[in-house]
Amino acid sequence: MVILTLNCGSSSAKFQVYDWDKKEVLGVGIVERIGQEMSNIEHKPLNKNEFEESGPCHDHKVAIEWIIKTILNKDHGCIEKIDEIKAVGHRVLHGGEIVKQSTVVDEEVLKVFESLNHLGPLHNPANIQGIRAAMAVLPEVPHCAVMDTAWHQTMPAHAFMYALPYDWYTKYNVRRYGFHGTSYLYTAKRASVLLGKDPAKTNVIICHIGNGASMCAVKDGKCYDTSMGMTPLEGLIMGSRCGDIDPAIVPYIMKETGMSGAEMDTAMNKKSGILGITEKFVDRRDIQTGCDNGDERCILAMEMETYRIKKYIGSYYAALGHVDAIVFTAGVGEMNPNYREKSVGGLESMGIKLDDSKNKASSTRNCETCISADDSEVKVFVIPTDEELVMTEDTYALMNGTYDIHTNYTYYFQSKEYKNKARERALPANLKKNPALKDIMV
Amino acid sequence: MVILTLNCGSSSAKFQVYDWDKKEVLGVGIVERIGQEMSNIEHKPLNKNEFEESGPCHDHKVAIEWIIKTILNKDHGCIEKIDEIKAVGHRVLHGGEIVKQSTVVDEEVLKVFESLNHLGPLHNPANIQGIRAAMAVLPEVPHCAVMDTAWHQTMPAHAFMYALPYDWYTKYNVRRYGFHGTSYLYTAKRASVLLGKDPAKTNVIICHIGNGASMCAVKDGKCYDTSMGMTPLEGLIMGSRCGDIDPAIVPYIMKETGMSGAEMDTAMNKKSGILGITEKFVDRRDIQTGCDNGDERCILAMEMETYRIKKYIGSYYAALGHVDAIVFTAGVGEMNPNYREKSVGGLESMGIKLDDSKNKASSTRNCETCISADDSEVKVFVIPTDEELVMTEDTYALMNGTYDIHTNYTYYFQSKEYKNKARERALPANLKKNPALKDIMV
Repeated sequence: MVILTLNCGSSSAKFQVYDWDKKEVLGVGIVERIGQEMSNIEHKPLNKNEFEESGPCHDHKVAIEWIIKTILNKDHGCIEKIDEIKAVGHRVLHGGEIVKQSTVVDEEVLKVFESLNHLGPLHNPANIQGIRAAMAVLPEVPHCAVMDTAWHQTMPAHAFMYALPYDWYTKYNVRRYGFHGTSYLYTAKRASVLLGKDPAKTNVIICHIGNGASMCAVKDGKCYDTSMGMTPLEGLIMGSRCGDIDPAIVPYIMKETGMSGAEMDTAMNKKSGILGITEKFVDRRDIQTGCDNGDERCILAMEMETYRIKKYIGSYYAALGHVDAIVFTAGVGEMNPNYREKSVGGLESMGIKLDDSKNKASSTRNCETCISADDSEVKVFVIPTDEELVMTEDTYALMNGTYDIHTNYTYYFQSKEYKNKARERALPANLKKNPALKDIMV
Repeated sequence: MVILTLNCGSSSAKFQVYDWDKKEVLGVGIVERIGQEMSNIEHKPLNKNEFEESGPCHDHKVAIEWIIKTILNKDHGCIEKIDEIKAVGHRVLHGGEIVKQSTVVDEEVLKVFESLNHLGPLHNPANIQGIRAAMAVLPEVPHCAVMDTAWHQTMPAHAFMYALPYDWYTKYNVRRYGFHGTSYLYTAKRASVLLGKDPAKTNVIICHIGNGASMCAVKDGKCYDTSMGMTPLEGLIMGSRCGDIDPAIVPYIMKETGMSGAEMDTAMNKKSGILGITEKFVDRRDIQTGCDNGDERCILAMEMETYRIKKYIGSYYAALGHVDAIVFTAGVGEMNPNYREKSVGGLESMGIKLDDSKNKASSTRNCETCISADDSEVKVFVIPTDEELVMTEDTYALMNGTYDIHTNYTYYFQSKEYKNKARERALPANLKKNPALKDIMV
């Protein structure tokens, strides 16, 4: 049985084709620059060469038709007939306080998502467009929605409420929602497996550090607190987002510069973070190169970003009282040992002790590693995230009638049999380049 | 030699008269409701009854004349002749990055303060008015300024910079400044005394919890980080200030409600915090009563405020790596055991262990207490703050030519001889009411 997952942004559509019976990714790809003059599609089918082509693609419906045509192609596709696809799983940013778990989509659910567009104006409308387009192209199969906010529904009120006028919560839905939830669900449950502990008794702090970056305090296997807030702007310093600032800066800068609220929002989301500090770079690989070359702004950017992560680790450590493991995931978290060292170095008095050589050896998206010292009370893991797998299984379980909220459900990737085959295939090349990896694989 | 200290707000002027030779407060008081139809003055002179009177007082100059007249009065005053006052120390909120330490005030210095008014619009103009008024009334003596921001000048760039467009820092002075600095200087140095450690080797986390509230991470006796930012809005949840929020909430609420930037600033500073959550209370004593009576909003407010403090303790613990002591100070920090218990309870894995009965016994502004368990690695102290004493000694030292930045200077209150006589006089009554206090006095 084949499940298609779709993650539609305003100008892109990522897709993955998964064979549930074989537990295998059949193909994965992306359509980019939707709505622009020329768009392009990339597709990496299993056991075949990567395919790429350009063409016009003026909306999400055309994009999804293009995806279907591509995955069905005899030469560079990954399935033979469209009716092999038995369900589609869609990523949706915001379920607000209404849609609290993965759900089969119908018109009523779409209307709820539309009513939440003001809370995720950059993402939700595109997510909904993607669902409507996919429903038009694949009308015969169930479509399911998996929300970034769902994981965070277990936060207690003292963690999700802001100390703002109370009626901003009741009238305008102002509260902490949290994002990256699907990634946290996957990595939290994988951490329990690596620890050999019951998820319901596991406390972990997860650092999801990519271009967007956030952290999550997981208590007894459930989200207790998270750094992103009402929107994905709050918390850590990101590629182009400022994270935490004095909120009084907003009206102050608007007054000093004459910028509007919308312009200010754009400045904080698109012109701040690492880009704001360095005035040139968004990508942490550029920051790393800059640091290696003694660029002062790059050094400041890395110091600031990792200092913020370190402070959040401390704050969540205090919030949880006891921590079994720190988990790093997503692009920077998986690949950059310097960021990790600067984020958790010097925390020995909290029982967190990195093994420097293990940390340096871990720079891979293909396997899970343990980088803490043998005598570290708190383990430090690097766990490559896999949001698509959660979306696939939620969709499968919804169709199968076995779906339940994550606290009552055991995912396939929590079992001993679980192997990420695509990663296992990529691993030998990685090991050849970096033999030290084999000593730290968990 | 007598030193007068003044702390002028927009509608009030606090004053203290200190005899440097006798190391004794001669009188302390306040003028309130300056500029309103009727104002009033309170004065508590040493060994005399408290004095209070009402009268018209349309500006700070009249207020200071009233103060001088009151402290010179034969019946209810505290000095005999005006020329006993040898210098005046003024509290100033904001020295920006220009005035980094206490300084004798002249026209040039006043102009610098005026150039910083946009960074402290609620406080700096009133501070300057107070200085100008006092200079007119007491033209023969030196006037010194003691800044709330000065203590925080040692913060490293990764702690004081925001991840915002870099030119907001260079053009608009957007950075973390920090406030409550004079209180931190006093309590940090007293903590070193209580620990029997060299201040330059002392790491402490100070929680200054009053109506306004902030925290400070002190590394090797110097400010390393603090929770208030460009303005006193950032950080902890306060009486009517929101502290940390998702900055995207600001443009969002402006759009939803049509509020202006200035109105938004007012809402975050005056209608948020404890007041925003409960929709009725600002004072933590009301919150405590509400909690005792099961009021849900009060319980939420206390949970939120103490959870925020706990998270900051964790984050500063991580930032410092090693912590000698946690210090509570200011109204709520000194008086309310519940706030302290909720803020540091459950942190045993960080070596912080309260002694519940010691904590409960400490509710006094008249002595320093140790409330941690005997086997707590990290001490927990309650240290009544004394900003006026720092202002007095800085003023004395500036006149005396012995003044230097705090890292090169030893204050009288760091000596073994130091006694706060006013507190010692008030202590017996406190001990009578609460005999357990004597076991926890340091």
